[in-house]
Order: sequence, then C-alpha cells, then structure tokens
Amino acid sequence: MTTRVVLHPIRGLPLVRPGDDLAELLAASLAADDLSLADGDVLVVAQKVVSKAEGRLVRLADVTPSAAAVDLAARVGKDPRLVEVILGESRAVLRTVPGVLIVETRLGFICANAGVDHSNVAGDEEWVALLPADPDASAATVRAALRRRSGAEVAVLINDSHGRPWREGAVGVAIGAAGIAAVADLRGRLDLYGRPLRATTVGTIDELAAAASLVMGQADEAVPAVLVRGVAFATDDGGARAVQRAAGRDLFR
Amino acid sequence: MTTRVVLHPIRGLPLVRPGDDLAELLAASLAADDLSLADGDVLVVAQKVVSKAEGRLVRLADVTPSAAAVDLAARVGKDPRLVEVILGESRAVLRTVPGVLIVETRLGFICANAGVDHSNVAGDEEWVALLPADPDASAATVRAALRRRSGAEVAVLINDSHGRPWREGAVGVAIGAAGIAAVADLRGRLDLYGRPLRATTVGTIDELAAAASLVMGQADEAVPAVLVRGVAFATDDGGARAVQRAAGRDLFR
Repeated sequence: MTTRVVLHPIRGLPLVRPGDDLAELLAASLAADDLSLADGDVLVVAQKVVSKAEGRLVRLADVTPSAAAVDLAARVGKDPRLVEVILGESRAVLRTVPGVLIVETRLGFICANAGVDHSNVAGDEEWVALLPADPDASAATVRAALRRRSGAEVAVLINDSHGRPWREGAVGVAIGAAGIAAVADLRGRLDLYGRPLRATTVGTIDELAAAASLVMGQADEAVPAVLVRGVAFATDDGGARAVQRAAGRDLFR
Repeated sequence: MTTRVVLHPIRGLPLVRPGDDLAELLAASLAADDLSLADGDVLVVAQKVVSKAEGRLVRLADVTPSAAAVDLAARVGKDPRLVEVILGESRAVLRTVPGVLIVETRLGFICANAGVDHSNVAGDEEWVALLPADPDASAATVRAALRRRSGAEVAVLINDSHGRPWREGAVGVAIGAAGIAAVADLRGRLDLYGRPLRATTVGTIDELAAAASLVMGQADEAVPAVLVRGVAFATDDGGARAVQRAAGRDLFR
C-alpha cells in the first residue's frame, strides 16, 4: 500500500565548520524540529555541509597552478588556481565551454567543475569546497551515528545538483548513500495485467535526492538536510557508486 | 519559509479508456481520497493514463513496417512493426543497442523507444501506447478543467521515466507542464554570505516529476497521479518544452 510521502526540511543547523560532528548537529536540529527518526526514514544531507564538516576546503592563495591548468584556464576564462584544483579532483576533462569544465571526477561523477564551488564556503572568495573524498563512507558514518543515537534503521543520502545532457536546469542527484539500494531492480515484476514490466531499473536514490533538492532549494545551508518519510526502499547497500554506469555500458561517452 | 512538502498518492482511478475525461476521473479520485485542490498544489499525472485517455494506442497488427524498420529491427532484435511505430514518433535515431533505440522524438525528448511501450496497455500484447501528441497541451487541458471545478490555482505535470547517460536507473521527468515555470532561474540570487549563487538554473518540474515517480513506483496505473503540496514555484508558463536544451547548447550530442 503506497502511503503519502512527507519531506521535512531540517533547519536550524549552525554554519558548519571543519571538524564539526555532523551527525550530532543533525540530531540536534531534528530534535529542535520535534522530529525523531523512525525505521524507514531517509535523511538527505546537502553535499556542501558534509564537505565543510570534513574540512574539504582549499584556499586558492595556497595553490600553484600547473602549466596545463594555466592553459586550460585561459581557454575557458577561469581562475588558473581554481582550474588546478578542479583538475586535481578529475580523472578526465570531457568537454569545455566558457566558464565550465565538464569532467569525470576521481569518484566517477560526470559534472561541472568537479563539484568544486565557491559559494557558501567560509564567507571568503579565496576558499573553495571540494566534494567529500568518499561520499559513501561519509553517508555510512552519519548513518552509523544516527542509528546509535536513535536505534532507528534509517538510510542516509548525500545530494548535490548536477546539470544534464539534453535538458536545462540542474537536478538533485545522490553522490553518497548508506542503508539503501541505489537502484531498484524491477525486472521480473508484473504490471496490472500480469505481464512483465519493460522498464528494468529505477534510480531510487536519485529520485530521493531530487525530491530533497526541491525542499532545500539552492540555499542549501538554510535547509541543509531533508527527512523523507514514507518511501519504501530496498536496504541492500552498495553505495551511490552503484549508480555509476561503466563507460562500456554508456552510449553517450 | 520552507515548509514541509507532502506527496499524496491518488489512487482509485478506474482503468482509463480512450475518450475518458481524465480531469473528471482525477477529480473523483481526489474527492474519494478526501483531498481538495488548493492554490499552489501540483498534480503530477503519469504519461500512460494521459496517452490512454487520448487514445494514443496503436495495434501492431495494423502496422506495415517499412524496409528501414525491418532492417533496424533485425539489427536490434525488436518487432519490425514496433520499430515502425517508434520511427514514426522520432526525428532521429541517436544510438542503438540490442532491444533499445535511443531516439530524439518528434516532441524533442531523447529517450528509449520514443516512449512507445507495451506495458499496462489494454491487456493485449498487440497494442502499444504512444506519448501524448502534445503533452503541454494535455497538461493545460487537465489544468483548465481542474481549475474550473475547484477554483484553485494549480499546476499540472505529466511525467514519464527516462534513462540517462552516465547513471544507472530511470528517473521521473516532466514531459508536459501547465501553470508552472519549467526551470527556476536563480541567477542574481545571493547565498548566505551575500554573494551571487554560481548555479544558474534548477530543473524544477523534473525534480517534481522525480518526486512523484517515487510515489507512483513503476506500477503507474495503481498510483496514476500524485498531488504535491508545499513546493513554491514560479507560474510563468512555458510548458515542459522549455526544458529541452537546443542541440547547439548541448555538449553531449
């Protein structure tokens, strides 16, 4: 039986600093919002606050760009030091366009500027935030701490906004996951007429990430986390990396 | 102030048949679920029921495949009559893989098999459903009827599930929209530190479509519509076609 799904914004988190215990801050904010975690809840946390808690910050003044970064920066019109940081986070540059490098990150995500971003970091243009070094591990750490505190079987996602081919507008995607199957496998299930469904797999964690993104808006430190209640999901746990399609299985690379 | 968002599954719709008044059926189901539409609600309707109400059904026995369809069908291992139908809905075939044609549809969507699907149609393998001929117009028609009945300023989306490059699993996307801006433009907005946001646009209707898809699951006739309450959105109305990125602005075509 499908029931209604509720997306609760989690507010009131203080500005997160390197070394902060993010699970503790989230638990306090949940309590302040009169929410207690229950089995089956999914807590979606914005990438930016995870990166900051983990100290994934770089001061551009400390960066010496390579010749390759200087050259690429001139072509796309970006700060060479920022390009150096982006290249350091990337396996490959797939496309370039003025102001943007589309890269495959070391984590395997294909996104703009390797997820490196000035905005909402430390109040100083000179600092940039990188993606978490291992977002699945970050999600697992937060999940373990929340389970310890609450006793509830919850899932944790870390979301970010990625642009896409063919369609305008960035949408929320999951870059880290714990306690939830990344993809729902519908193969073998039957439709209302008893025939096998044609669609095979559903990107469950990305649909959850997009739903949470609706509530976070872009000001992701005002609403840095969203509690999703009422979605059924499988709990076999392969992390968000299970969503990454192998290059050999991808028709658009 | 961000408030919680609630996704209500709309159940109890009868199996939809060609010629049915979909808005009337939806209004009856809403009433049966004790839901009345309010200003700012978004009703997301599954593509399949829209297509069926509009009679977008083709019996394969009535289809004579062209030589091109026969050839392509042999290469990908599909029914030549089905391939003929898919080609009839397509501007271009972008990629092929056994069992799947990735096409640009006449409507401009890039998706598998032009959205033509056997499943959940008429209980007979011989019939396939096409996408609505003009999903933005379909959404506008349903919206106008619901506004007439309820007096509420609602938005209507039609969603489908599309596969994506780079990531496994299909996710909900909006193929039709009325009463809502397809993309939220954040350019010029400021972050918590008073600096301009880097991210420029958000695919609002696709995030809504993905959220609704979570509630519908794949059995999209069991939950053929979802009422989304609590999301703020702009109402300037360009239809879902405004999400389509022009080929010249797309780095992955």
